[in-house]
Amino acid sequence: VIKSPYKDTSDAPKQGKLKDTIATIIIDKAYAAGMKGLEELSHIIVFYWANQSSRKTLITSPPWSDQTYGVFALRSPHRPNPINMCVCEIVSIDDNKIQVKHLDAIDGSAVLDIKVYSTDLDCYPEAITRNDNNIMK
Amino acid sequence: VIKSPYKDTSDAPKQGKLKDTIATIIIDKAYAAGMKGLEELSHIIVFYWANQSSRKTLITSPPWSDQTYGVFALRSPHRPNPINMCVCEIVSIDDNKIQVKHLDAIDGSAVLDIKVYSTDLDCYPEAITRNDNNIMK
Repeated sequence: VIKSPYKDTSDAPKQGKLKDTIATIIIDKAYAAGMKGLEELSHIIVFYWANQSSRKTLITSPPWSDQTYGVFALRSPHRPNPINMCVCEIVSIDDNKIQVKHLDAIDGSAVLDIKVYSTDLDCYPEAITRNDNNIMK
Repeated sequence: VIKSPYKDTSDAPKQGKLKDTIATIIIDKAYAAGMKGLEELSHIIVFYWANQSSRKTLITSPPWSDQTYGVFALRSPHRPNPINMCVCEIVSIDDNKIQVKHLDAIDGSAVLDIKVYSTDLDCYPEAITRNDNNIMK
């Protein structure tokens, strides 16, 4: 589960990266063995269930455009399966708790998975969007 | 659903990025509206359910090491919620079909979600692993 200072969706930033807020991921003791080696990493990818999202939304207008796009071409929390992901910086690890920066989840969100962030697998500086997709706006 | 030349897990590469194999993602017509704007993107993040994974595995030894790590510090398909992700290059889009490179899913895997890849959000060349995590080995 995620403990976050964002109490509802209106508190949360459009993208976690826009804020340096610290959230705490609490891993159920039954799964804490899966954390072995996390202390050797700087960044993880956190997957959580965005349970306040609309699962019926297929097309929407993002904050950075007046045009509409399909949710599969966006990072909107609204999508048929609202599995949200954030690349997060690890701040500290204490027992079954991980403090991270850049997580946009609201307080109480369920964590689905955590994976190591790999520059080899995940960093594509050449990736392009031919729309005006300025996600950081 | 994913149509892939990888028919079982022994066919699939350790990481999709290691091969230039082309797979086809077929979006159910009921969700195809969500594809609007995909044609303007070069890379997407594909999430699929790795239904042949072991959901009981919490610690494992990756291909690149003799040591064991927790699954949350790895990219192993084995994990409590086997939501696998690959950053994929779009090759072509035709109606409700998306051809992509670098997807490591086996044939018939269920697609959970697709998101735009954003260099702003997803590219962290400074990310480090202090173990010998050489995922491309």
